Amino acid sequence: MEKTGRSERAAPHALFWQQLLPELRHDGATLQSQLRAAIVGAILNGALRSGVRLPSSRELAAMLKVARNTVVLTLEQLVFDGYLVAKPRSGYFVAAREDAAPRFEAPAAERAGQDAPDWPSRLLDTALAGKWLHKTPDWQRYRYTFVYGQFDPKFFPVAEWRECSRLALSVGQIHGWASDAVEQDDEVLVEQLIRRVLPRRGIAAKPAQILLTVGAQQALFLLAEALIARGMAVGFEEPGYMDARNIFLRRQARIVPAELDEQGMRPDARLAECQYLYCTPSHQCPSGVTMATARRLELLQMAERHDRVIIEDDYDAETQYQGQPLPALKAIDRNDRVIYVGSMSKIISPGLRIGYIVADEQLIAALRSLRRLMIRHPSSNNQRTLALFVAQGHYDKLIVRTRQTLAERAQRLSDALVEHWPAIEFRRPGGGSVVWARLPEGIDGRGLAAAALAEDVLIENGDPFFYRDDQDGRFIRFGFSSIEIERIEPGIRILARLAKGLGGH
Amino acid sequence: MEKTGRSERAAPHALFWQQLLPELRHDGATLQSQLRAAIVGAILNGALRSGVRLPSSRELAAMLKVARNTVVLTLEQLVFDGYLVAKPRSGYFVAAREDAAPRFEAPAAERAGQDAPDWPSRLLDTALAGKWLHKTPDWQRYRYTFVYGQFDPKFFPVAEWRECSRLALSVGQIHGWASDAVEQDDEVLVEQLIRRVLPRRGIAAKPAQILLTVGAQQALFLLAEALIARGMAVGFEEPGYMDARNIFLRRQARIVPAELDEQGMRPDARLAECQYLYCTPSHQCPSGVTMATARRLELLQMAERHDRVIIEDDYDAETQYQGQPLPALKAIDRNDRVIYVGSMSKIISPGLRIGYIVADEQLIAALRSLRRLMIRHPSSNNQRTLALFVAQGHYDKLIVRTRQTLAERAQRLSDALVEHWPAIEFRRPGGGSVVWARLPEGIDGRGLAAAALAEDVLIENGDPFFYRDDQDGRFIRFGFSSIEIERIEPGIRILARLAKGLGGH
Repeated sequence: MEKTGRSERAAPHALFWQQLLPELRHDGATLQSQLRAAIVGAILNGALRSGVRLPSSRELAAMLKVARNTVVLTLEQLVFDGYLVAKPRSGYFVAAREDAAPRFEAPAAERAGQDAPDWPSRLLDTALAGKWLHKTPDWQRYRYTFVYGQFDPKFFPVAEWRECSRLALSVGQIHGWASDAVEQDDEVLVEQLIRRVLPRRGIAAKPAQILLTVGAQQALFLLAEALIARGMAVGFEEPGYMDARNIFLRRQARIVPAELDEQGMRPDARLAECQYLYCTPSHQCPSGVTMATARRLELLQMAERHDRVIIEDDYDAETQYQGQPLPALKAIDRNDRVIYVGSMSKIISPGLRIGYIVADEQLIAALRSLRRLMIRHPSSNNQRTLALFVAQGHYDKLIVRTRQTLAERAQRLSDALVEHWPAIEFRRPGGGSVVWARLPEGIDGRGLAAAALAEDVLIENGDPFFYRDDQDGRFIRFGFSSIEIERIEPGIRILARLAKGLGGH
Repeated sequence: MEKTGRSERAAPHALFWQQLLPELRHDGATLQSQLRAAIVGAILNGALRSGVRLPSSRELAAMLKVARNTVVLTLEQLVFDGYLVAKPRSGYFVAAREDAAPRFEAPAAERAGQDAPDWPSRLLDTALAGKWLHKTPDWQRYRYTFVYGQFDPKFFPVAEWRECSRLALSVGQIHGWASDAVEQDDEVLVEQLIRRVLPRRGIAAKPAQILLTVGAQQALFLLAEALIARGMAVGFEEPGYMDARNIFLRRQARIVPAELDEQGMRPDARLAECQYLYCTPSHQCPSGVTMATARRLELLQMAERHDRVIIEDDYDAETQYQGQPLPALKAIDRNDRVIYVGSMSKIISPGLRIGYIVADEQLIAALRSLRRLMIRHPSSNNQRTLALFVAQGHYDKLIVRTRQTLAERAQRLSDALVEHWPAIEFRRPGGGSVVWARLPEGIDGRGLAAAALAEDVLIENGDPFFYRDDQDGRFIRFGFSSIEIERIEPGIRILARLAKGLGGH
């Protein structure tokens, strides 16, 4: 009753607050931070003006259905930060504050537009005509997600990364990373790469031979800008990683598709004519084939004989779970004929965007200048956090854990395919997080992917990996970096049934 | 005595450990993390093999001169993580572990080299011939640092950034950022830009009109790649921001130097012939002049009349401390003739590398494709952390604080120049963190900068800001984003004395 009485008295007030305050989510950001964001937002956008009295913490707690303590802590923090003032026995008020936000007359939301530039005619042909892999942006909403390279939050080392972020934000560390550092990369991370990460691939390098990049993608882009001129021949695995191919195509390179067999890329006469060869020896993208040692030597000898350069994209190097991984191609290169591209994204998270190049010093110096022009440098705080993450042993621990998980999923997926879908052709993976498969005759990847979508299953049609248009469209790729193990078999059953319905076996 | 007895028994052991363990620094990374990194490093590089017994925590604490509790906590964490095992009453031992690091025969550190590619002949002319501002990489070692754009750790909001990093790493948030997100930027950050940051510049924008970039540098690089063809005329402030000019020069643009007066860039007949105009209206780089409203309208009308496009680099928008800032040029543009480039780096830290473009939707879509090819996307964790930083009100608070600090330094610097160096010409800044000054006759900026270095003073010679070679070299720039206020006057005294000695007044 008393409550009703108060409500009546404060009715318009309460309504105002109810509209202003968010419905707090009990996941994600903490309750305090949600409440703080709502109050600060209202102050800064003018909905809460200077001098307005806030409801009491008890009233706010009741409206928001949270503990009163949560409200009190938030309000006290806002007092400390100058957004509110507390007056004894009267409550919290919006503070008068120096305005960081001058208000300008709001511009018309709709542009006049009649005199706008003709953008399509202004845009240069940035040669994005290549094939892309369509990634379903809302992939997390599907039940059976056989997609590649997406993030499985279960892998993410939240506590360890948070700890290293905290360390990177200690005062002494901030001095080390927060400057504008175009001339040199984070020395702690470079040291960890040299001492910890590269030796595992058999690679010895000096700091001047290493450049950090915004993921492997930027590494390839920089290399193409610095080295690939119009019309230059680039040998490229067929099928191959279309994002790299598109980078070379944008430079108007002439792509020379290279045959693959069970040993990897075949060094034939046409390849010998190519100035540059792009390959993925650890686990060929997309087929997963590991290039045999004899083939590696053959390729390297061909490069030396004809003065060619090999770009080795070792994007998925750390995930070998069957037997020992081979050292990188770069490890057996004695003449800097191999440019090595690495990535830390696959193990930790694609969102962090840290990759690197290991190559000849002169080349690295030129790439560094180009990188300066392009982005100045990759985020320094992430460089330092990653360096600490490796130094503290978390990276190694994570690799072991990731391999175990991927090995289990690989086995479950392979077993399910053998049992439920005998007509599909594939090879059991020894590393990585994909199965590349050939569909039975009479059914194509595009059709199956489309039909699967309607049944809550995501698979990747293999067609965009091919440069030539003469293949029969029967390849698909199963990614298993983001699917829970219990969902693998049911997903495969659905696909096998669909394939049957579509005319395959 | 008892201690000595033990030491004798363990002598070789102790020496081994003394060599292995680092001298712990009592700054920067915490003691625990340093100790952990040393032990993990030794385990992973093989110096500590499986089964080796560690010294007791008491012995380790004595060797390292740290509290025993620090050692115990570190060792217990390493047990938890599987690097060590604890055996009751016998101590800690290196665990047997699944090897994440296969060992390969170490490759020869020195390359054979005789068959190495001829890299200089392979490198394309990446047109880096433009003038650069030389930044002294070890600038922090100098006493009087009149440099620009470097980081003042006192500005960095350690506690707030750490809090937002922590929030961004909550499980619910990680889902939102850790995926490979090439198609769209962090929606929370885009929303904060639209609701909080851009209105302060008078700009209304929709999400499809915004692209996040790796700092303003990448924004300009993307624009040049998408829009500037060989030989195209680009109007450019003279003097102007050389990093932007170098980006256009790399595209083989024809730079048309634009005269400046006290109103800003002058729209003359030569400018009207330029397809694109690059300018910095808020605080012209390097002179600090704010473009007058009449001049802005004139420039915009010229662009509309001749179908030209203006690139507005609003790199330093939030630092106006004298009077109200003018809205952006973009704010009075009704036809999407202005491409707006913004940066969050100047306020928070250049190391984070977050900038953005606001422009026509079609242009943004094309730039997004190009960005995908170039880097995929900027670091997602930094996008989300920054979004929370703005949403929690820390960004606004920081702006107010930064302005106050800069205003104080600007005044101190201006006063010192007037008092100690009356012969130098300059304008008191109303915003930003530089004073652009013209030296008295008979002395040039390069000579003064070199002489100053020897006296522990860093200043920036103004020459690289000029495109034309016909100026007399008498400009210098005083940056004050990184110098402590008490050091300003003594630094200026030294410079004034040096200038006198060099033949100026």
